[in-house]
Amino acid sequence: MNRKVVKVGLLGLGTVGSGVVKMLRQNVEELAQKCGYEVEIQRVLVRDLEKMRAVDVERHMLTRDVQDILEDPEVRIVIEVMGGEEQTKEIVLQALQAGKHVITANKDLVALHGALLHRAADENGVELLYEAAVAGAIPIVRVLKQSFAADNVREVMGIVNGTTNYILSKMTAEGAAYEDALAEAQQLGYAEADPHADVSGLDAARKMAILASISFRQAVELADVKLEGIESVTQQDVERAKAGGQVIKLIGRARREGSAIEVSVAPMWLEAAHPLAKVGDCFNAVYVYADALGEAMLYGRGAGEMPTASAVVGDLLAVLRGRKFAAAQPQQMARWA
Amino acid sequence: MNRKVVKVGLLGLGTVGSGVVKMLRQNVEELAQKCGYEVEIQRVLVRDLEKMRAVDVERHMLTRDVQDILEDPEVRIVIEVMGGEEQTKEIVLQALQAGKHVITANKDLVALHGALLHRAADENGVELLYEAAVAGAIPIVRVLKQSFAADNVREVMGIVNGTTNYILSKMTAEGAAYEDALAEAQQLGYAEADPHADVSGLDAARKMAILASISFRQAVELADVKLEGIESVTQQDVERAKAGGQVIKLIGRARREGSAIEVSVAPMWLEAAHPLAKVGDCFNAVYVYADALGEAMLYGRGAGEMPTASAVVGDLLAVLRGRKFAAAQPQQMARWA
Repeated sequence: MNRKVVKVGLLGLGTVGSGVVKMLRQNVEELAQKCGYEVEIQRVLVRDLEKMRAVDVERHMLTRDVQDILEDPEVRIVIEVMGGEEQTKEIVLQALQAGKHVITANKDLVALHGALLHRAADENGVELLYEAAVAGAIPIVRVLKQSFAADNVREVMGIVNGTTNYILSKMTAEGAAYEDALAEAQQLGYAEADPHADVSGLDAARKMAILASISFRQAVELADVKLEGIESVTQQDVERAKAGGQVIKLIGRARREGSAIEVSVAPMWLEAAHPLAKVGDCFNAVYVYADALGEAMLYGRGAGEMPTASAVVGDLLAVLRGRKFAAAQPQQMARWA
Repeated sequence: MNRKVVKVGLLGLGTVGSGVVKMLRQNVEELAQKCGYEVEIQRVLVRDLEKMRAVDVERHMLTRDVQDILEDPEVRIVIEVMGGEEQTKEIVLQALQAGKHVITANKDLVALHGALLHRAADENGVELLYEAAVAGAIPIVRVLKQSFAADNVREVMGIVNGTTNYILSKMTAEGAAYEDALAEAQQLGYAEADPHADVSGLDAARKMAILASISFRQAVELADVKLEGIESVTQQDVERAKAGGQVIKLIGRARREGSAIEVSVAPMWLEAAHPLAKVGDCFNAVYVYADALGEAMLYGRGAGEMPTASAVVGDLLAVLRGRKFAAAQPQQMARWA
């Protein structure tokens, strides 16, 4: 079969990056059948060339110099799973300006610089996709962009941080104190040693800024998100809620009323019968209310190596199947240059 | 702005067809911004030219002769919302062979002739999309095809028939007898005068055959779906289940074990804590278990004029944004013909 090979540059080889390498290798045949392209990883940006990795990557593929990827004309798609904000923004911007499609799992990047990066992608006729940046295994970005594309979204409401949901679920189900539930989340690897970004609601706020921007088709800044974390939720609060048939959840909400958009993250008391009240453990769920489609909910794992890698590879497939990729074959560009 | 106009042929102007006309008219500007094309309905196939409609469509746009649409070279996309099986299959086949992209909301058509129609679409380089055919407002077809595309789906389990879910929910919540709950569903318009297709499980079986075919990437025939309806579920059964902390739901399941695929529709006793047990009223929900993504659930309205129309228009946008549409501009074809 006469397949075209597509070369991909990978930025980062941590947990998610390793998962992406594994999935691409395991699925090379299946992906080729689905999109007609054989995907090859050309180069991988790492900090340390000697570090032990969860996957075997040949030494000559590794580089510490991002320009080896950005300036390689064979690399048509860049997958950014290294994290970071300012410096990463410059790198992604350069990739887009070089006519490379970009897939990122970096919610901080998209929440802070999404408008700028989208503009660069549009100007250069390339895709910028970030399904993995919001709620891991839940394909909410794609669903909002595509399935609700012909609809008028009124409200998005969700549990988009798995760590805080795990902590609150523990406090509710087992009567655990906040500190004990947090310590357990840390032991299980659900919470970082410094849990600030999660428990303060900041992580959820970044995701809600992204979901609001997509839903309402205008840039919602992180600074515009009203923010309250779960640090002050006590076992007494949880018990009082329970006594009233309610459950406390950290809820992100994005609402539009006329031209006013309101986005917030805060602990909310939900009726126990509310579908979001039943989302336990470290699961995520997002509710969408739209004029035509009515209400819909998506539920799944919010994080993890393979769910996140799977979302990245799903985006890769979308790039390869898309109009922009077909429209800008480098061979053709070379011919007309 | 120099926009291209895309002409669409609409087959059928019933509930869903009227919804599609409404949505396209309301969103013409928004759609153009999203895909660069201005969508115009060129012709509408109807049975009766004189009938009163839920939307105003100019008389000259109506036709009783499907060839007015199939043979019109300006019509690039056909939307089939007329229903039917054998005759509709011939019409859709002819549209695909004429190089027209097809969007259909017809689950019977896709369940019975999906393999044949997919082949015709592939051979002619056009799209065949049918999000509206399964579970209305739930974008399960797109999610399975795209988000789970790089994953290995093990099991799909769902409530995919709103009528039977309404009946069983009534029997559970209010202790209603089967006959009374059915009569109420009919009064509310959730069930047909002849409820056979719903209560026998046939409608759910058609949807599960489609979902299984997509999930496991091979044609699953309707005849291969093991089928049991809810006609024999009694109030006693519901009470016995309740006493044991369980709930009876009509569950469609599609599982793969090695190369063996098993698809069934039958009433099942679910633990009250099971997420599908809580899907009430006429709502639908689909659970997916896959190797990488883990478990995910989609929940929403299974039917209705606007949810279904919205799914159709979402598919239309996907066609307009896709590689196949861009690859076969009729202008270009004319230039090279």
